[in-house]
Amino acid sequence: KRPKISGDARETALTAATARKWSLVEGRDAIYKEYAFKDFNEAWGFMARVALKAEQMNHHPEWFNVYNQVKVTLSTHDAGGLSESDFALADFMDAVA
Amino acid sequence: KRPKISGDARETALTAATARKWSLVEGRDAIYKEYAFKDFNEAWGFMARVALKAEQMNHHPEWFNVYNQVKVTLSTHDAGGLSESDFALADFMDAVA
Amino acid sequence: KRPKISGDARETALTAATARKWSLVEGRDAIYKEYAFKDFNEAWGFMARVALKAEQMNHHPEWFNVYNQVKVTLSTHDAGGLSESDFALADFMDAVA
Amino acid sequence: KRPKISGDARETALTAATARKWSLVEGRDAIYKEYAFKDFNEAWGFMARVALKAEQMNHHPEWFNVYNQVKVTLSTHDAGGLSESDFALADFMDAVA
Repeated sequence: KRPKISGDARETALTAATARKWSLVEGRDAIYKEYAFKDFNEAWGFMARVALKAEQMNHHPEWFNVYNQVKVTLSTHDAGGLSESDFALADFMDAVA
Repeated sequence: KRPKISGDARETALTAATARKWSLVEGRDAIYKEYAFKDFNEAWGFMARVALKAEQMNHHPEWFNVYNQVKVTLSTHDAGGLSESDFALADFMDAVA
Repeated sequence: KRPKISGDARETALTAATARKWSLVEGRDAIYKEYAFKDFNEAWGFMARVALKAEQMNHHPEWFNVYNQVKVTLSTHDAGGLSESDFALADFMDAVA
Repeated sequence: KRPKISGDARETALTAATARKWSLVEGRDAIYKEYAFKDFNEAWGFMARVALKAEQMNHHPEWFNVYNQVKVTLSTHDAGGLSESDFALADFMDAVA
């Protein structure tokens, strides 16, 4: 079971993520970001890389796609909220987007 | 520009699709279905096949995924509602799910 | 470092794999199989699932694809030959092909 | 049926492709290139994008992958050799690699 992230670790991670356009979701301990790619091909290349990473981490995004748009919500079911894994996956997503 | 599907063609297509658990969306001319797979691996294999087909058709789904779940909305932007392409993509999805 | 598979475990695994059309490669401790799918779409759906599994296992196939064909060689670099991981990946491939 | 590319169009396309590290295959009218990515994740992101494009073009590569390496041969079965499609797919590959 993954623990919730808390205290300074949480603040540091949230500050870094919000600087990269992640935002806290209202009414739920989760972060959210919208990506816009050039077209479906580019969006799908991104999703294919994230899918591999997610499966490797055993930590999967909630994501919505239509054409060039990918909208991602990250939270950790086990933890009942944000964990280190969410920020690790967010970092990966931003690195490969 | 893809034309809206209408008349008998629409009724026939909708009857077939609803028999396979597609439903009309409220307040919008679109169809919706939820798929549940065994795990993310199986869900992603489905999505990868649908992605290829969608790009080939130049007709892309609105879809949401988390782990083993895939929730799909189909409608045709050009047509301002359902077109033959939506039912063709729905047929493909059900064939490979 | 993954150990080579040997003795009875090797014989049992090889017997099971060869019954499913895997064969030993000449001049190298590896197994090989050719898959033929209906078309590229089906072949790629297979490859997408195997890619996820391979990354999860951190054990990657050598594979060749053209259109509906996928030709796979499995061996373990670390082990200098066949390991349990090769047979585990072969099992997965056959389960999802 | 796709026609073979010939004359000046062929020379221009080959000159551009060889400047980007494609080479003619011996004994066959085909071009070949090796890509090396950072890791499997990056290689697979590339392959996922090329797969979409190939299916859209109905023109599929012969490709080999292991871990971070992707080795591609392009030729057009219909044409019995190189066609415009091969160079179009090579251009796409280089643009997204």
